[in-house]
Amino acid sequence: MSTYVGESVVTVLGLGPMGRALAGAFLDAGLRVTVWNRTPGRDRELLDRGATAAASPAEAVAASPLTVVCVVNYDAADAVLRQDPVTDALKGRTVVNLCADTPARARDTAEWAATHGIRYLDGAIMSMTTTIGTPEAEVIYSGPEDLYREHLPVLETLGGTHTHLGEDFGRAAAFDIALLDIFWTAMSGYAHALAVARAEGITARELLPHAQGIGAIMSPLFEEFARDADDGTYSGELNPITSAVSTMAHVIETSESHGIDASLMRAAEGQARRVVGLGHGTDGITRVTELLGRHLR
Amino acid sequence: MSTYVGESVVTVLGLGPMGRALAGAFLDAGLRVTVWNRTPGRDRELLDRGATAAASPAEAVAASPLTVVCVVNYDAADAVLRQDPVTDALKGRTVVNLCADTPARARDTAEWAATHGIRYLDGAIMSMTTTIGTPEAEVIYSGPEDLYREHLPVLETLGGTHTHLGEDFGRAAAFDIALLDIFWTAMSGYAHALAVARAEGITARELLPHAQGIGAIMSPLFEEFARDADDGTYSGELNPITSAVSTMAHVIETSESHGIDASLMRAAEGQARRVVGLGHGTDGITRVTELLGRHLR
Repeated sequence: MSTYVGESVVTVLGLGPMGRALAGAFLDAGLRVTVWNRTPGRDRELLDRGATAAASPAEAVAASPLTVVCVVNYDAADAVLRQDPVTDALKGRTVVNLCADTPARARDTAEWAATHGIRYLDGAIMSMTTTIGTPEAEVIYSGPEDLYREHLPVLETLGGTHTHLGEDFGRAAAFDIALLDIFWTAMSGYAHALAVARAEGITARELLPHAQGIGAIMSPLFEEFARDADDGTYSGELNPITSAVSTMAHVIETSESHGIDASLMRAAEGQARRVVGLGHGTDGITRVTELLGRHLR
Repeated sequence: MSTYVGESVVTVLGLGPMGRALAGAFLDAGLRVTVWNRTPGRDRELLDRGATAAASPAEAVAASPLTVVCVVNYDAADAVLRQDPVTDALKGRTVVNLCADTPARARDTAEWAATHGIRYLDGAIMSMTTTIGTPEAEVIYSGPEDLYREHLPVLETLGGTHTHLGEDFGRAAAFDIALLDIFWTAMSGYAHALAVARAEGITARELLPHAQGIGAIMSPLFEEFARDADDGTYSGELNPITSAVSTMAHVIETSESHGIDASLMRAAEGQARRVVGLGHGTDGITRVTELLGRHLR
């Protein structure tokens, strides 16, 4: 294994669409890159572009001072990293784990790394595969700031914006989870709305300009509601949660009148109704944040 | 009652925040306005500005060729309109119903109007109270196009964009429902995400720039997914629904590890898992639209 030491600048473990994009961007930046993937054959185009294939994950991590991990989740990452030859080879080297998982798993992996003398940063990629290597890429990190600064020149070759969010190893994953919560809830609501619209004879293209109007007001409302949530001001003067509940009931009724499952809106309505039930009906929707955090009495 | 006939250009029934905004914009445009509200005392500022108070809803609707109704929902509208003196006074006049409710209720009200020789347009206000009288106001209508054209000069004094969506009386309400489905699902997801973030020590203000980044990608994704939904193309090449399900599971796990109710994301995950269960795991999230519309086999 030692023959590989220092041969590459960066190793990429995991060659799904995102892993391939990361390795490709490193190559485009002129870096020497070693790659490995559990399923063989994913590396052909990267090898043509100058990457080095490692025969095993232990060889792969031994080839570079920095290993970037991009597999489906931390179970998959653990299956690769937590084998003795790999753990041994990583001693004194840096792992940047860009897999998506929970903050608890990120903290657990940091503990494992510390136990084995492995330098560790956790991170999350906030933009789509196609953004890697472009100014639209967005990657967030947490862990020791000096370690982040040390590897930033290599990481920055992925393009776009790189942000260190703090020393708590779980912080990048926590941001990721909160943002994915917004994203997937909104997109699931959109898919649902398209079904309701279709049942009413409205095509998605007909709805689109209006849906984009809704999208456009989200940014200022996110800002207003962020102030509400942080400062505990929940005025619903213009839009009390009672009126949201009434609207949600119309959505549920219309969905179900077409036989369309409304469990998503029923869950949203349930949150809002509980706020009303606790006597906060004249407050705005952001009171739901306190309800869910069990600060509402 | 006949003494009021023709005295005003427009009558506004319902003086909640939105009704007051509508009447105020009509007054600002120099129109003679008659107002009525079930609970007295809401009209003081409007009377100071030149509005005429009616002693009853029958007097109110008899005062103008056009009555705009803006009460909480169609139950409230019915309670005002479907009284014999009011119905009688409305004969040959026009009602524009801007209350929020379901398409079914809009169609039912149009039937009632036709039975009683009342000219009828249904509509929905798509923008917030504060936009009324400004270029940001957005109002949609459905019903007879010639009737819409006839009253447009008065309606346009409310400012902003006015759109006639079709002759089906339920169409404006159907657009409204679909858009509110998107809006309230997304906002409920945001309120939830703020609770998860807070439990992880992240303030709403810290999350905000990233949340706004999510908001910014919604518009292009809405467009892409609209094409998918209309054309039946559901490629999940870059973002298969299996990977959405895995992400949603992380959100649920993190929420519940803090004791935070995740029923909203559980409902979203349920939609997505059923798509995977039916063998469409490599498709994109928009397959959910077909699942919900029961076109997925």
